[in-house]
Order: sequence, then C-alpha cells, then structure tokens
Amino acid sequence: MNYKSINFSEKYKLFNEQWKPKVISEINNYQFKIAKIQGEFIWHTHHETDEAFIVLNGEIKIEFRDGIVTIKKGEMFVVPAGVEHKPSSLNESQIMLIEPKGVVNTGENKTSNLTAENDVWI
Amino acid sequence: MNYKSINFSEKYKLFNEQWKPKVISEINNYQFKIAKIQGEFIWHTHHETDEAFIVLNGEIKIEFRDGIVTIKKGEMFVVPAGVEHKPSSLNESQIMLIEPKGVVNTGENKTSNLTAENDVWI
Repeated sequence: MNYKSINFSEKYKLFNEQWKPKVISEINNYQFKIAKIQGEFIWHTHHETDEAFIVLNGEIKIEFRDGIVTIKKGEMFVVPAGVEHKPSSLNESQIMLIEPKGVVNTGENKTSNLTAENDVWI
Repeated sequence: MNYKSINFSEKYKLFNEQWKPKVISEINNYQFKIAKIQGEFIWHTHHETDEAFIVLNGEIKIEFRDGIVTIKKGEMFVVPAGVEHKPSSLNESQIMLIEPKGVVNTGENKTSNLTAENDVWI
C-alpha cells in the first residue's frame, strides 16, 4: 500500500490542457478527476448518473435550461442525473469531478471535439 | 431544483462537535460528509467499501498497522476496503469523507462511544 497523500496543487502542475479530466484517485467504482476549464463547454446530459463538481480554484458557472448556479473556490454542487447542463468559466478554474468510472465528459455527445479520453490517470 | 452551491466554510459554522460526520450532499448512493476532528479516533475497518478523506483545513494522520499517512489541507487519501486504520488530528481539522450511504464511522465497532448517528444532514 502506498502511504502517500494526493496533493491537488501538485497534480494540477502536471498538465495544462483544458476540459480534459485526469483521474487522481478512486473509491470503489467512483473516480476523482481534476480538470482545468475556461470558456464555455457544450450542453450535455449524463442520463445514468449524478455528477459532483468541487471548485478548488477560481469560479465556474453551470447553466441549466431553467437556471444557473455559480460555484466558487471552496464550494461544490451536484448536477442530478438526466439534467442538461453547460459548465463555463470566465477565467481558468481548477475543478474536481466525482462520478462513476466511465462517464463521458460530453455526456450523450460522445464524438464532440471536446470529448476527452476517459480513465487518464496522472 | 435548487440552484445553490454548497459552501464548505459556511457548513462548518453550523456545528461544533467533533467526530460526528454531517452529510452536505450526495451523488447516487454516495454521500459527502464533513466533520471536525481532533485527538485520536479508534482503530476500525470498513470491510465493504473504500473511504475517501479530503482535508479542507488543518492536517490529519491516518495510522495503519504497517504505516502512516499525513494528509494536509488541499490533499486527499483513500483508505482501501478492509484495511484497519485510525485517524487522528493534533489540532482540530476539517475533513470531508466521501463514501456510500450507510457507512458507520466506527466500522465494525458499531456501539463505540464514538459511533455517530448516520445520515445527519446539515
């Protein structure tokens, strides 16, 4: 067993690309993925699962068809399964996603140019 | 739907007791629980599930029978299922646990004086 903690800041130093979640840990069949995001993502839905967003640095927004939420550093929000949403971030933000293994970042749009490779560990 | 983010600092202001995890959110059948901890917990094991610790403030240690890990603010660690462990914190720390609903904080010791009521939301 590896008795070493995972440091979020150090993990963020390992990549620069935006909107490409990297797995840093997992519990059971759930993964912890960090990403740098800036600008607007696409509208998409995860029909099969809720999705947790934690903002570690910066401030993001998630738009819904009937509302919007702002999530700042030190805050989290859960997008329920089946709810269409569009994340965005004016400046670059650092986020962590918690969700089951295998979730495609663009939801039902599996061939968007923003669709990221899954299960990429750093 | 409630378009409001969950602010960790504000949630921590809502209680003072130590070692009593409070649920602040959930995804599917997993819960996000925050706790204030100080001193030494008891040795225990979660046979059925991994358990994720995120340190939001302070610094904690988790002792194992063959090692120890230090987890500081901005870091996380996952204790694998079936691994006996004993968390501790010299000064009061603020942590977040992520694990399936229904996990007893004292593991197989379900009647310890440190056993907390489950599924308590704040």
